[in-house]
Amino acid sequence: MLTKQTLSYAAAEKVLGWAADKASEMEVPQNIAVLDEAGHLVAFRRMDGAKFFSIEIALTKAYAAAGLRVSTHEVAPKTQPGMPGYGAQALNGGRFTTLGGGVPLFVGGQVVGAIGVSSGSVEQDTEVAQHAAKIFHETFN
Amino acid sequence: MLTKQTLSYAAAEKVLGWAADKASEMEVPQNIAVLDEAGHLVAFRRMDGAKFFSIEIALTKAYAAAGLRVSTHEVAPKTQPGMPGYGAQALNGGRFTTLGGGVPLFVGGQVVGAIGVSSGSVEQDTEVAQHAAKIFHETFN
Amino acid sequence: MLTKQTLSYAAAEKVLGWAADKASEMEVPQNIAVLDEAGHLVAFRRMDGAKFFSIEIALTKAYAAAGLRVSTHEVAPKTQPGMPGYGAQALNGGRFTTLGGGVPLFVGGQVVGAIGVSSGSVEQDTEVAQHAAKIFHETFN
Amino acid sequence: MLTKQTLSYAAAEKVLGWAADKASEMEVPQNIAVLDEAGHLVAFRRMDGAKFFSIEIALTKAYAAAGLRVSTHEVAPKTQPGMPGYGAQALNGGRFTTLGGGVPLFVGGQVVGAIGVSSGSVEQDTEVAQHAAKIFHETFN
Repeated sequence: MLTKQTLSYAAAEKVLGWAADKASEMEVPQNIAVLDEAGHLVAFRRMDGAKFFSIEIALTKAYAAAGLRVSTHEVAPKTQPGMPGYGAQALNGGRFTTLGGGVPLFVGGQVVGAIGVSSGSVEQDTEVAQHAAKIFHETFN
Repeated sequence: MLTKQTLSYAAAEKVLGWAADKASEMEVPQNIAVLDEAGHLVAFRRMDGAKFFSIEIALTKAYAAAGLRVSTHEVAPKTQPGMPGYGAQALNGGRFTTLGGGVPLFVGGQVVGAIGVSSGSVEQDTEVAQHAAKIFHETFN
Repeated sequence: MLTKQTLSYAAAEKVLGWAADKASEMEVPQNIAVLDEAGHLVAFRRMDGAKFFSIEIALTKAYAAAGLRVSTHEVAPKTQPGMPGYGAQALNGGRFTTLGGGVPLFVGGQVVGAIGVSSGSVEQDTEVAQHAAKIFHETFN
Repeated sequence: MLTKQTLSYAAAEKVLGWAADKASEMEVPQNIAVLDEAGHLVAFRRMDGAKFFSIEIALTKAYAAAGLRVSTHEVAPKTQPGMPGYGAQALNGGRFTTLGGGVPLFVGGQVVGAIGVSSGSVEQDTEVAQHAAKIFHETFN
């Protein structure tokens, strides 16, 4: 058998809070999704005013980050026209995105989950997700 | 224009908490989804130990309850063989369920959202959702 | 080549109006969809207060009626447990329903389109769809 | 609770009419969809001669405009190769388009719905949608 670590709800709720604090400070309401290492939803928060359209996008960003084990924006260059990953966004029924705002969460070098943020600009979404992930990594490693 | 009321995140988080407290008391970890009046996700919690398979089911129960404006288990009798609603579960791409555990949330007689609970037995899911909805209705009406 | 008759928008708008008048008289706001003979949408009206959940259901009822060339409620008996049509509701990606409220529209014995109504009880939906279809048949035949 | 405004059917029908008048003047039959602020269909018209293929596209344009809160054609530049939004069109199960012809409708600075137009060239679709939105904004603000 294999043993794996995964996010508890308590840890996921902390991630939601760190992200929401940052989003509030930036005055950009966000959809925030936290998934476990298997890509399954653990916690979600739609801040008042966040776009309904971006609920699914936040989930997809987190899903791709958990699955790829890297931040979504880091995958983007590999999917440009002419690159080997070209066209990847159509995979997994569209649950593959390279839009910034999906960031994996690690403990002891292993992915235990991911955060996805969406409703602002891609840059704002990325900043919020990275902020929460940074505190997560400092707290749990 | 029309004006309508919908759940704030603060209210949705309270609903999550009331449901989780009940589930903890029953010692049955649950997936708990809270949607707004238009069927869009506002808040989600997977308690440690809840089934990943039931994440989608909790979301679907809440979606059906918000959309039908009645508790999912109340619709079930109308969809039995020979009844007018027979076969309804195949509608809306499978986002139509009559499994107990989806309960609409009302303020002033209007649906403002819904809760969906799934991971225990249907009876347990229904009990948790109804408990949270009851406190919601006492608090916000 | 074959020649076929199909609904004009002008005729579809009349059907919407006849249905909406009946729904208003019954004080049950409805989603009303009118499709052409190929199952494609021609006109749609969501009356204020009709359920968002039933938009898709109204479309599905009309689609099934246009496609089956009979009213949806007439198909229901053939899909009961033990009958040859059992399980049909899962076909066509869920765009097969036997819930009352889908009625085909005929001109000269040929299907030219269909109406689908949803947001009330199945009986109410059926009554509205049949009312509009009746006036259509009197007007165009 | 939060309070929000959304399109009435009466307002949506006006939008359909303004768009159809413009399309008639241009001699380009169109599919015209009007959605509410939550992305749900309120009214639809397929003008005689409009492409069935573009029904879904009109719906998707309106959905994206309601969800993104900007016109679809304005998002296109941000999704070009090398840009942060590259690949966005695969999100939301394909209900994310940057093809011109989706325009949000605002009242008092808040999105209350959107119009989507499709069957002509992208430029023609955009012109029709913008025309209707312009009159809407003059009428309701």
